[in-house]
Amino acid sequence: MPNPIPRRRDAAVSREAILLSARKVFAQSGYEAADLSEIAAGAGVTATLINRYFDSREQLFTEVLADCMVGPARAAPGTLSAHNLGRTLATALVSLTETGDLPLEGLLILLRSASSKRAAIIGRAQLEKGPQATVAAALEGQHHEERAALIMALVSGFQVMRQTLEVSALVKADPQVLIDLLTPLFQQLVDGASTEALTL
Amino acid sequence: MPNPIPRRRDAAVSREAILLSARKVFAQSGYEAADLSEIAAGAGVTATLINRYFDSREQLFTEVLADCMVGPARAAPGTLSAHNLGRTLATALVSLTETGDLPLEGLLILLRSASSKRAAIIGRAQLEKGPQATVAAALEGQHHEERAALIMALVSGFQVMRQTLEVSALVKADPQVLIDLLTPLFQQLVDGASTEALTL
Repeated sequence: MPNPIPRRRDAAVSREAILLSARKVFAQSGYEAADLSEIAAGAGVTATLINRYFDSREQLFTEVLADCMVGPARAAPGTLSAHNLGRTLATALVSLTETGDLPLEGLLILLRSASSKRAAIIGRAQLEKGPQATVAAALEGQHHEERAALIMALVSGFQVMRQTLEVSALVKADPQVLIDLLTPLFQQLVDGASTEALTL
Repeated sequence: MPNPIPRRRDAAVSREAILLSARKVFAQSGYEAADLSEIAAGAGVTATLINRYFDSREQLFTEVLADCMVGPARAAPGTLSAHNLGRTLATALVSLTETGDLPLEGLLILLRSASSKRAAIIGRAQLEKGPQATVAAALEGQHHEERAALIMALVSGFQVMRQTLEVSALVKADPQVLIDLLTPLFQQLVDGASTEALTL
């Protein structure tokens, strides 16, 4: 009997191992090209077992994204209502994108799945339910959904430029300079009201 | 003699047809997966002719990116020194990413080539030589390179969220609201000095 399914293996452990392996493979190959047998091998299980835990590639992808869409917003949940949220977000973002660090996997997975319409739909849903909703809930005033989405846009654009493209001006910059430049941008989106005032 | 190379075909016309076809195929398949024979078919030429005009896949990719890295910065070159550059950039960006429009090809090509290290290096070079340099040249004061790179980050993050992921809050928003929210962000990065003041 080749590739026997490990008996009595704890279901939660197997499930976790599959999710971790899938995260790596999706980040490497993207939604459509990810190889199920590679995910199985990385988790030390059989492809059959993956199918037992996850109904479909879509479901596996959805759970992976839900797990790894961490970012500045989720990194600092306790401070999300603080009045200095702009600086908190800027500091967390610059620190999470340090040169030499691995790019954040949630973003990598989305980038490498960009050719799949289905992956984009799942990615959008996870973004809107996850970090964007967390930020939106902390904002007051008009257009808080738009402002939360713009915060996500700034976060993801910065990640792409600093970690994926490795734009020199951001890689070589003094991190404190980047924090000081980003802080008023985030704060403006957080405050909203002052945004109106400034555009008059 | 199958697939004869069209005789006396104007070289500039062939070259242009190859670049246009390559742009579509790179946007569809990304740097590594793009199929040379598909590019040739789309241009109405042979793969041999492509090799005659372009030394390598890298060179073809580089020229395609140089051609299509248009964006708000290049869309409004005459206004780049205007004091209301923030609003100019915001208006151009919102207008270029209208719902229903095709996503900007330069960004699509970069996204779909994200798994290739080589493509990222070429993309960074083209970004830094092209739109980022144009913006940086229009900025005064300290850290103008970082500020120009952050403008690129905001532009690309907004494009990804509105056009690739189609985040609802940005797709359904009143365009004028988006312009009003983006304007002070861009203007702050343009001014620089006021950025310092605001963080004190």
